[in-house]
Amino acid sequence: MRLRNIKDASSIIMKSPYVISNCESYKGKFNELFKNNNIIQIEIGMGKGDFIIEKARQNPNINFIGIEKYATVLVSVVKKLEAINLNNLKIMHLDALMIDEVFHNEIDTIYLNFSDPWPKKRHINRRLTSPVFLTKYDCLFKNNGQIEMKTDNQNLFEYSLVTLNQNDYVLEEISLNLYNDLPISNIPTEYEKKFSAKGMPIYKLKALKIRQTIDTK
Amino acid sequence: MRLRNIKDASSIIMKSPYVISNCESYKGKFNELFKNNNIIQIEIGMGKGDFIIEKARQNPNINFIGIEKYATVLVSVVKKLEAINLNNLKIMHLDALMIDEVFHNEIDTIYLNFSDPWPKKRHINRRLTSPVFLTKYDCLFKNNGQIEMKTDNQNLFEYSLVTLNQNDYVLEEISLNLYNDLPISNIPTEYEKKFSAKGMPIYKLKALKIRQTIDTK
Repeated sequence: MRLRNIKDASSIIMKSPYVISNCESYKGKFNELFKNNNIIQIEIGMGKGDFIIEKARQNPNINFIGIEKYATVLVSVVKKLEAINLNNLKIMHLDALMIDEVFHNEIDTIYLNFSDPWPKKRHINRRLTSPVFLTKYDCLFKNNGQIEMKTDNQNLFEYSLVTLNQNDYVLEEISLNLYNDLPISNIPTEYEKKFSAKGMPIYKLKALKIRQTIDTK
Repeated sequence: MRLRNIKDASSIIMKSPYVISNCESYKGKFNELFKNNNIIQIEIGMGKGDFIIEKARQNPNINFIGIEKYATVLVSVVKKLEAINLNNLKIMHLDALMIDEVFHNEIDTIYLNFSDPWPKKRHINRRLTSPVFLTKYDCLFKNNGQIEMKTDNQNLFEYSLVTLNQNDYVLEEISLNLYNDLPISNIPTEYEKKFSAKGMPIYKLKALKIRQTIDTK
């Protein structure tokens, strides 16, 4: 369900116990929100939320935060969550550009699922794996950080392999056709179900950012 | 043309003016063989040689050395070259495992075209982008070195992206479907022509190894 009226959408979202309203106030201390010290994983661009809801269900000892820019999209997540009880999932209505205003040294993994490929050159900085965003992510990670990315977009995947490599990420896993040898643990997004059913390749990677320690010798 | 008799093949090869017989004697001074100081690029596993012969034709100011393990394969290259006059191309009958016995600080680019994917785990070290070979290549390069790789093998390409990244190569270009947007400069190998004609994706990458300079401050 998408509402055209953003005002209505915002009002529905704000009433949900899953939605974090005053995000900035938790900066650096989201563990207080979850009332535990479990690791925190976020999905930037959660869309209709199937991926992160299922992740949260399967991993009760990990905290999850789903982030989405569009209120009208978030409404369908909120509606879905009305019938579900998950203590380890929260939702944020936020533009990814603001991500480093909200988190600091506390994130373990960032999931990027079928992000907007922003194909035009002049929009390259809007890609969620552009150096602009990778620099922001550096401030988010607690200790070593990880990005897990899935996409059906060839150009975005090629671009992301290059930027991650050039920004000191260790590429740990790469699949150029995830459904050739699908891991049982894979949780498909709504979009992924449609595209994989058509036989189109789904690309996936896991990349690790190792925190630089300052040599104080 | 493939000869079954390796002795006959070796005898044909040795007579060719293109073939370098006493490879080790030029170690570190292959520029003397070419009688100029142009950069040297090599292809490991040249097969029937179409790629490197065309490269040499198009780039008279670059020296090329094609390397092939199988004498019976090299015979067809030698026969092809009988009617061609190229001063900037040489051929070596050599197992890639010996590559660091033959070259030292003098190679600019290594081409790996449709290398054997060695799919079994126990053969992983035989892949031409395994850490075993990447360590050997480090000794070959003069200043910064480059690897240009093409393959139709998904697993080998995934593997190579990971090993190159983990061995400090800068991934410069990646194409997950070269024929989607084929550069005019592409020189197809014999194998590539067959596979691309069937519509199968051809993967390509360029990766740069930047020579570490020792800080003597």
